[in-house]
Parts: sequence; C-alpha cells; structure tokens
Amino acid sequence: MQDNIKKPLILVTNDDGITSKGIQLLAEVMKEFGEVVVLAPESPQSGMGHAVTVSKTLRLIETRHFNGIPSYQCSGTPVDCVKLAKHHVLRDRKPDLVVSGVNHGANTSISVVYSGTISAALEAAIDDIPAIAFSLCDFSPDADMMHVIPFIREITGNVIEKGITPGVALNVNFPAHEKEMIRGIKICRQAHARWHETFDQRYDPSGREYFWLAGDFVNMDKGEDHDVWAIENNYVAVVPLHTDMTAHFLIDQLSRSFNGKK
Amino acid sequence: MQDNIKKPLILVTNDDGITSKGIQLLAEVMKEFGEVVVLAPESPQSGMGHAVTVSKTLRLIETRHFNGIPSYQCSGTPVDCVKLAKHHVLRDRKPDLVVSGVNHGANTSISVVYSGTISAALEAAIDDIPAIAFSLCDFSPDADMMHVIPFIREITGNVIEKGITPGVALNVNFPAHEKEMIRGIKICRQAHARWHETFDQRYDPSGREYFWLAGDFVNMDKGEDHDVWAIENNYVAVVPLHTDMTAHFLIDQLSRSFNGKK
Repeated sequence: MQDNIKKPLILVTNDDGITSKGIQLLAEVMKEFGEVVVLAPESPQSGMGHAVTVSKTLRLIETRHFNGIPSYQCSGTPVDCVKLAKHHVLRDRKPDLVVSGVNHGANTSISVVYSGTISAALEAAIDDIPAIAFSLCDFSPDADMMHVIPFIREITGNVIEKGITPGVALNVNFPAHEKEMIRGIKICRQAHARWHETFDQRYDPSGREYFWLAGDFVNMDKGEDHDVWAIENNYVAVVPLHTDMTAHFLIDQLSRSFNGKK
Repeated sequence: MQDNIKKPLILVTNDDGITSKGIQLLAEVMKEFGEVVVLAPESPQSGMGHAVTVSKTLRLIETRHFNGIPSYQCSGTPVDCVKLAKHHVLRDRKPDLVVSGVNHGANTSISVVYSGTISAALEAAIDDIPAIAFSLCDFSPDADMMHVIPFIREITGNVIEKGITPGVALNVNFPAHEKEMIRGIKICRQAHARWHETFDQRYDPSGREYFWLAGDFVNMDKGEDHDVWAIENNYVAVVPLHTDMTAHFLIDQLSRSFNGKK
C-alpha cells in the first residue's frame, strides 16, 4: 500500500473489557487492514445491551494494553465507547469500520438484544458506519481463537472492499475450536429462540436476600436458514442486522383494529 | 365483573424508577383492567436499553409506594424487573399483560434501542406476553398526563380484548399536553432518525477529566407514516415492535457476495 493512499481508520471495541483475549486478537488482525484505534470498557460489560451512561459521569484514560496501537479504556458501556471514540477521541474523524469482539461466548439469535458486543456494532451502523460484531461460541477466557483468524480476514476484507448497506451491521458467530474443519460462511437470519431464566436466590452474611440471574438458551426454531443452525452445523454464521424493530407486517391489521375505517 | 371470572394479571414497570409520576398513574389506570403487581427499578434507569444484570447481584424489596397494590423495587434494570417478576415474584404465574411507563420523555424512532421502558415491554414480548410501552413527549417529572388517560384505556382495552401477535409489543408515544385536542391514534412505523451526540468535557475538583453524554435528536425521515410525524401532528403514535433485527432484504445479496456460487 502506497503512503499516499489513505489507510482505513478502524475502531476496535468489545464488551468483555479491554484486557480480554478476544479484543487483543481482533486489534492485531485489524492492523493488516488499516489504522487502528482501540476504545473499550475498562471492565466486563456483558449483557449491557444498548445501554448508554446518562445518569453517571464517564471516565476515559489512555492505556498501554496494545502493542503500539493507540488505546483507551472507558468506565461506560460498549455503546458509550463507540460514541466517545467518534465524538472525542477521533475528533470527529469518522471511522471507516467499527469492529467489536471477539466476544467470549455466542451472540446468536435473541442474544442480539442483550449483547453489548452487538450493540457496539449497531451503534456504528446507526451512523452509517460499516460495522462487524465477532463472537466465538466458547465462554472460556483463554479460548482457542486461531481457527477463526482466516474468517475474520475474509469478512473484514469483503466489508472494506464492498462496503455494507448503510444502517446494517454484520453479526458474525464462530463455532468453538473443534477437530473438524469449519465448513464455510453461511449468511443467515436470526433464529427464533429465547433464554429461559431462573433466579438463584441467596442470602448475604447479614441475612439479606439477593439474586443471581441464570438461565438456559432455548431454540424453538426448526429452520435451517438461521444462525443457531449454522453454528450447530459448523459454519460461520453471518446475520445482517439493523435497528428497524418495526413489525411492519402488523401495521395494516392494527390500523383496522384501532381505527376501524382506515 | 363476576368474582368467578379470573381477572387479567397485569405487571407494571418502567425505567424512570418506582417513585415517578408516570408509573403511579399507569398502575392506577391498570386497576380498572385486572389484578395489578408493580415491580420497577429503585432508581432511574433511563438509557439502559435491554441491559440485564449478570455481573452484580440483584436486590428486591417490597414497597408501599402504591395505594393497596402489591409493589416491589429492584436494584436492577427494567429488563431485570420483568424477569424477576415472571420467575420469582409471580411464582411463574404468567402475566396476561405487561405495561411499561408512563415514561417521562419521548421514545420514538431510534430511541427504541436505548430506552429501558421499551426494552421492558420487548422482554415480555420475547416470552409471547402481550406488552405495551407508554411514553409522554414531555421530560418534566411533574408533567401533566391527564389528557392521555383515555388513550391508555382505549389501547389497553383493545389489547386485552383482542391480544397481540406473539412476539410483538406496542410502542405508544403521547403528545405533550397542549391546548389543542389529540387528533386520534395513528399506527405507524419507527422513523429513521438518530441522536447526534456531543460530550460535555469537565474536570472534577481533583483536576481529573470526565464526560457527560449530551445530544440532539435528528430526524432524517421525510415520510408521513412514522412515529415522529404522528407526534408532530398531534396524534398518539403506536408502533408495533419485535426483536427480529435481521435485515432480511440483504440476505440474498450477501450470500452472493460471500459465497459466489450460492
């Protein structure tokens, strides 16, 4: 690449926090594609969804967690990180790409609404910035991720070369490392599934009750065109996501129901 | 209503916190429709989106903020409240309806991804429980809400009588109180708009930098079939929402882009 060709500006973030293995790997791979800046939460922010910090102050400090890459940690959520990067750290230079992850744990199906990793990518998409969320279906903090690097390269290269429709982010889930080779990339829809929660009720040393959220993932979707199926069949699952949550198919029916004549 | 006809079980929550005016009003109106239980955040949770509390413990205590209505406050997010209600407080009696609000401030357009009020309703919808989020386009803590009561009644009555398609929640926004009469109910789609953020950079008494998130709502959508238009034209805006965030229109194009042959 010639010096006079401007390198893409790539923002890297996540929800597991700036010291996680997944973001270290992702930032390293991104160096092959452009100028990288890391801005990630100072502590784990799993399950923070699209939360923004509005009733507390935000702190931001420069870190040295990344070998030679400008990096910052923030007291807020993944979405805060993307907003702070765009409007403060990057001084309104718009990133050419925002990548989030590699998340330690699956973000398929309904997890898109709970995951800070996904919301960081969607926050970029809201501003028409190409964005990709990467997740590995393995919760282990030292999970083996070497097998996903070629796919991170392929998907990132494709997005940088061809762009993404404005407003859309890619949700990429990788199978955990197994002996069997990954069979390829499958573009799919979000599976229709949910978490079935339980609460673990305990008592603290003062005898006061508290709760831990726990639960199991329940897939009700028999299709073979969704992300859970793709992972179960050893494909990389890629779901295009956007933030239009309107149930368009219901608008006419509801109009008749509420307004009669219309 | 005869005693032997089972009253609907209605869960009331919000994101402004259990002491806000909006939830007091909503719980009172719901008493006309069924058996009411309130479970809401102990403190304001605006902007918490679909966050769940997974890395901290949850506290839950019974309160007396509501005249004769069983009520509980929770240390967590609006989504935590719905989960705790379903799985602990209601002892797995599934509510017939979940209502969230009345939020002090608009939740139109892209605000659906940031708002805890909306996410509480969507959390119920994920479990196929009919759900409605109510928001008033007035941020004032003592906003006049009398003008919206007939519409809360109409929409709630409609949903209890006719149900909602499983997986869908209604996002209802009311115009702020003005002299002009509200023109009616408009079923619409979510407007294509975004927040343009700025960060207010300050220094604490120790000289350390911190930030406040601030910003303006920017509507880019020229349509007349969306929620922002409806509010600007003095209608009650009702948007059916669901949690399928797949950009279905892009699946074929991306399949060709990534897999060539497929």
